[in-house]
Amino acid sequence: MSNEKLVKSITSMEDDFAQWYTDVVRKAELVDYSSVRGCLVIRPYGYAIWEHIQRLLNDRFVETGHENVYMPLFIPESLLQKEKDHVEGFAPEVAWVTHGGNEKLEERLCVRPTSETLFCEHYANTVQSYRDLPKLYNQWCSVVRWEKTTRPFLRSREFLWQEGHTIHATPEQAQEETTRMLGVYADFVTNQLAIPVIQGQKTEKERFAGAVSTYTIEAMMHDGKALQCGTSHYFGDGFARAFGIQFADESNRLVYPHQTSWGVSTRLIGAIIMAHGDDNGLVLPSAVAPKQVLERANALYERLRKVCRAAIDVCDQSPGWKFAEYEMKGVPLRIEIGPRDIEQNQCVAVRRDNREKTVLSLDEVETRIPQLLDAVRDGLYENALARRSAMTYTARSLPELIEIADNRPGLIKAMWCGDRACEDALKERAGVSSRCIPFAQEPVSDVCVCCGRPAKHMLYWGKAY
Amino acid sequence: MSNEKLVKSITSMEDDFAQWYTDVVRKAELVDYSSVRGCLVIRPYGYAIWEHIQRLLNDRFVETGHENVYMPLFIPESLLQKEKDHVEGFAPEVAWVTHGGNEKLEERLCVRPTSETLFCEHYANTVQSYRDLPKLYNQWCSVVRWEKTTRPFLRSREFLWQEGHTIHATPEQAQEETTRMLGVYADFVTNQLAIPVIQGQKTEKERFAGAVSTYTIEAMMHDGKALQCGTSHYFGDGFARAFGIQFADESNRLVYPHQTSWGVSTRLIGAIIMAHGDDNGLVLPSAVAPKQVLERANALYERLRKVCRAAIDVCDQSPGWKFAEYEMKGVPLRIEIGPRDIEQNQCVAVRRDNREKTVLSLDEVETRIPQLLDAVRDGLYENALARRSAMTYTARSLPELIEIADNRPGLIKAMWCGDRACEDALKERAGVSSRCIPFAQEPVSDVCVCCGRPAKHMLYWGKAY
Repeated sequence: MSNEKLVKSITSMEDDFAQWYTDVVRKAELVDYSSVRGCLVIRPYGYAIWEHIQRLLNDRFVETGHENVYMPLFIPESLLQKEKDHVEGFAPEVAWVTHGGNEKLEERLCVRPTSETLFCEHYANTVQSYRDLPKLYNQWCSVVRWEKTTRPFLRSREFLWQEGHTIHATPEQAQEETTRMLGVYADFVTNQLAIPVIQGQKTEKERFAGAVSTYTIEAMMHDGKALQCGTSHYFGDGFARAFGIQFADESNRLVYPHQTSWGVSTRLIGAIIMAHGDDNGLVLPSAVAPKQVLERANALYERLRKVCRAAIDVCDQSPGWKFAEYEMKGVPLRIEIGPRDIEQNQCVAVRRDNREKTVLSLDEVETRIPQLLDAVRDGLYENALARRSAMTYTARSLPELIEIADNRPGLIKAMWCGDRACEDALKERAGVSSRCIPFAQEPVSDVCVCCGRPAKHMLYWGKAY
Repeated sequence: MSNEKLVKSITSMEDDFAQWYTDVVRKAELVDYSSVRGCLVIRPYGYAIWEHIQRLLNDRFVETGHENVYMPLFIPESLLQKEKDHVEGFAPEVAWVTHGGNEKLEERLCVRPTSETLFCEHYANTVQSYRDLPKLYNQWCSVVRWEKTTRPFLRSREFLWQEGHTIHATPEQAQEETTRMLGVYADFVTNQLAIPVIQGQKTEKERFAGAVSTYTIEAMMHDGKALQCGTSHYFGDGFARAFGIQFADESNRLVYPHQTSWGVSTRLIGAIIMAHGDDNGLVLPSAVAPKQVLERANALYERLRKVCRAAIDVCDQSPGWKFAEYEMKGVPLRIEIGPRDIEQNQCVAVRRDNREKTVLSLDEVETRIPQLLDAVRDGLYENALARRSAMTYTARSLPELIEIADNRPGLIKAMWCGDRACEDALKERAGVSSRCIPFAQEPVSDVCVCCGRPAKHMLYWGKAY
């Protein structure tokens, strides 16, 4: 057993968090590297987590009236250039197709880094009247951004995501959509992935290329760094003007519509790993766990598979190897049942998050197992929230902020005057970026932590992935 | 009404089948063109059909033990070149990425035209022992082939598909898998898409690049042309040798595994359109119809949505416009219910396939509507089968085959000696390609229709999409 266990051993978080992360994604068999740097193979166990995320989010998108579509993979250079902020933001990091077969293309095409321009072209073709609005579209696809440094799930050259793109008759309706979808993300990440998030607005510096305003959900990872988990953008009529999208309103006047976009990606898998994982491997919230429960008795398995994603273990490895393997894979609940348990009409459930054991009567597994799965989720959430609270600091002066940033991993609450110069200064002097202007404002002083002038907002600052 | 209806009118099949097809895909709002030639926008109504196909097939893949994965979008040129038949087949029609951001890549990357090479690279990394086999993987993704001429769904530069890739310890297991998955496709297309198919093997000429044998399901379209609807390939150990995939068998000897791949694509949507459509537009088999039933009474709608994908019509257009619109969209069943119907506790169901009206008691809609949906499917299948029978001919001599090919659209059964030269000659002299060597052999003579030497197989020949 010890040999087998050794094979699976991973670097401890405390020794080297980055190596711990890499060990987990490889040894839990989530990914394999391919010969194209920054492009991953997502293996069955990793892809199954993504399929659960897709299914749960897609249900919410459908409930809120959205329809799925598929846009082309390629964007002609001239189309990408139509909105000037947008092209400035994305052109430096796109992959360019220059040849089809043996022929050089007349115009080079980029592999979509995001699809605003394609949706705009389609809307220009199909939106003529107020009767055509709103259009509430979503797309599940892969996108490509030619990043210099890459890490599985967190930053890769190709990644899977969904991108919602909507178009509305009025700015109010578009703004409402932007907020609604941020809320859908926040609710999903909080309640199903069991990760607490801060909802807020991005500063102008951190805004999406071409947006009027960008909203975000920010989560804290085990190492105190922030991870942007999802964003929702309000575009005003900027894209509509750039792409010539107009519609006849109820008085038959030609006016510009207002747009939004919003997205989450396979980065959420990175968030799950770094928010919940431990030195034994993955810890998965039950909503997205490919296997929710593992146990060893056939009769019980037949009953359990009706109430959860039960898996039965029939391999011939030692119990020690198996337990290490299930822990690595983050299975939320393990059921142990031996001959004496059967005699006593009971089994033992072991939680992955805190290893707590519960003895259950076999008569009540159908009700108790789902409760225990919920308890794992609640436990994960409470742990993550407690960790975030313990690692969130307040700074009222620049020296204080620098001292915290240098010595204590985590988030820093501090006031800001609203000037880009102060935001840049904090990045340069303390190495932190603005994470968001949270909706829940807690003014911790009256003046900007950097320049001392009157403050406009309380911001969260931190180091980020 | 006449004006509105005029807008929706389409070219009749008889006048111009190709234009009829184009009219249907545009006016039923399945697709929109993008500014990249050969790359389509799949609109909500078209994408919903694909989502139903995905869901129904994916269930069958899971039932037969397959797991979903995601492979990279890009293949380095050197990786594509590892298997020589494969690269010869695909290199002339791939899109090449040469630049990432502002930098020229050291090695150009092709956008995957199919992913055998990527799966092989991954198998080489992960398959070491017989205990690792089989691996039964599937991927849903888009692929790119730089075609010269394109038609929506039938031949486009980018298309959506699934590609199964499996690896087995023995040739027998791999061959069994190849046959099993062809059977899954045949069953799905026959029973859920209501399209009769011929199952058989491709000739060497028509074989997939790199395969030992390729199996196919072939369907006949309204115009008598054949459409290849799905293929399943047996690779032997050719890819394993080219990519250096070896495993230790139970006697600890290093041996080569055997592989398969199999795929269907959004081309199936083209098959549905051309097998079932009519001069009023789409006719959708109920299994994949985004809306199965349309009706106008709220109380009835609440009951129907529990047994089918019911949609209620609340728009203020005229009944004539609505009926034309639903017919265009191929909704399998339309429910009419007026004040007098309500008085008499009844409604009228109108089938899309034959416009047959059935008066139903409101008490029995939950049982009768699903039966009627099945009846539409059966009706579609019987029609398509009768059309195929009527348009299938037998040729016993070359002049006879040429005469049929020149004058009668459809499939031709004829004997073949097995020589590529005769296959080429039939293409040149009669304009037909071999569709398949059907599993169900019906020897119609003893000698090759072309050269008169002893025949080996009965083949289906025809013009194809």
